[in-house]
Amino acid sequence: MSLLVTGSIGIDTVITPFGHAESVLGGSAVYFSLIASQFTPVRLVGVVGEDFPPEFRRVLEARPIDLAGLEVRQGSRTFRWSGKFEGAMNEAETLNVHLNVLAEAPPPVPHAFLDSRIVFLANTHPGLQKALIQQLHAPKLIVCDTMNLWIRTQRSALLEVFSLVDGVIINDAEARELTDRVNLVEAAQKLLTYGPKFAVVKKGENGALLVTEQGTTSLPAFPTTRVCDPTGAGDTFAGGILGYLAQCGDAGPASLRRAVARGMVAASFTIEDFSVGRLRTLTRREFDARLEEYLRMLHID
Amino acid sequence: MSLLVTGSIGIDTVITPFGHAESVLGGSAVYFSLIASQFTPVRLVGVVGEDFPPEFRRVLEARPIDLAGLEVRQGSRTFRWSGKFEGAMNEAETLNVHLNVLAEAPPPVPHAFLDSRIVFLANTHPGLQKALIQQLHAPKLIVCDTMNLWIRTQRSALLEVFSLVDGVIINDAEARELTDRVNLVEAAQKLLTYGPKFAVVKKGENGALLVTEQGTTSLPAFPTTRVCDPTGAGDTFAGGILGYLAQCGDAGPASLRRAVARGMVAASFTIEDFSVGRLRTLTRREFDARLEEYLRMLHID
Repeated sequence: MSLLVTGSIGIDTVITPFGHAESVLGGSAVYFSLIASQFTPVRLVGVVGEDFPPEFRRVLEARPIDLAGLEVRQGSRTFRWSGKFEGAMNEAETLNVHLNVLAEAPPPVPHAFLDSRIVFLANTHPGLQKALIQQLHAPKLIVCDTMNLWIRTQRSALLEVFSLVDGVIINDAEARELTDRVNLVEAAQKLLTYGPKFAVVKKGENGALLVTEQGTTSLPAFPTTRVCDPTGAGDTFAGGILGYLAQCGDAGPASLRRAVARGMVAASFTIEDFSVGRLRTLTRREFDARLEEYLRMLHID
Repeated sequence: MSLLVTGSIGIDTVITPFGHAESVLGGSAVYFSLIASQFTPVRLVGVVGEDFPPEFRRVLEARPIDLAGLEVRQGSRTFRWSGKFEGAMNEAETLNVHLNVLAEAPPPVPHAFLDSRIVFLANTHPGLQKALIQQLHAPKLIVCDTMNLWIRTQRSALLEVFSLVDGVIINDAEARELTDRVNLVEAAQKLLTYGPKFAVVKKGENGALLVTEQGTTSLPAFPTTRVCDPTGAGDTFAGGILGYLAQCGDAGPASLRRAVARGMVAASFTIEDFSVGRLRTLTRREFDARLEEYLRMLHID
């Protein structure tokens, strides 16, 4: 089933206890697409500036990612972010952010993409998320992310978006702030009252919660000592979820549980190297082997 | 297989966002015994003062817990602790602690208990833990807990205890402090170099890690909105683990994984009420029903 993602495409500089990566490929739509394309072709909608390096574009071209919706805007500069992870590396400290082209008009959605059935709206201004939803002809499943900035400054616009989507994938701090609930199961249950049929709450190294009307599933992260750079872990988590749902064409409770497990495995690869280093070389065989290991770990009689 | 526990028996006062419980039954050995006795009879070694209320003793007498090792020391007062949980309630703030009888000589171990095969040493001074180990005639499995105080002040005595036990069950902050490792899988792996064959790292609402030479298992907590008072959750977690291991008479990797799952379910009941309120009424049927629900949640294909 056709899968569309829109989100940021950026140039990152990241410092972690394990080293430092300067001006590397990043952005939510990039991380999402690289892993979702392991399951199904991906249609990417995003905008970069004329400074976007051709070798970054080639990373995306090497995968089944349709770049018809990737606008290179002349006279503009690409989104840049720099951040630092310390200690348990559960949260990045943003050192610098230049929205650049992301602060301008959004990229147009190619006409050929408007029939997309499965859609992921990575974090951006809720107004833009709504505008994109309204262009779609026959979406079957729309899922969105957001961030604390919009929760604080665009709450009503954000709640309107939530009323239009089928699922949300947000992190624990965002879920707590938006719902004013400390208990994460309660927070996720309250998210459902805004409209979505499912809510996934990301807890970094502590895994995630999936809450639907049918119940709650709590899953751990894949335990690993190979943690180099957590940048993009949440976006690849979403990419694994949506990629799987698009591949299997179903979003019922059992499929959602399987999808979240695949998201967890996806994230465990991302963090093994800086930027998209590990995702570029990842094979489906490697993914499936780790997925089997993860599911075996959880299978207790 | 005979199961012995030694640890604190106390009178707690606890404040949580959901209320307040004054002078209620508490202590690591109490929480441990109440749940472990769902699986197998428990031999309890501990000491209280002459102020220990008879109704608290009756709570223990109502379960298959052998109190031959419960000393009531005349002229002494029972251990008292008061603490407060706030926010996500992951950690208690200690408001007051009176060691009282716990600062005196340890209780003698009844001769009839010295043949115990499975032994849990709840948190206490490492010197006392070692003294107890040395009295045992033919232990098959010894597991211990500890706390940050001993990590900071009795490091070499603690490492000596670790070299004498088969397993450790400690929390994430303790594992990090003791091993000087931030990554919890690495921390647990380093714990094994001190001697134990397995290490369980407790992460509160985020579940736990089990690390053996054969590999790592990460399990989530049972997701629940019924969180009233986390006091004793870690001790009941250990009680579920050891109770199951004593019942099945095996501590191989597969049994350990099953045991940790049972510990997780045990803890989920403890937190539903103040003190041992929920554990007093808990039936094995209720336990098994939730265990089945928990294992089903984790079983993904």
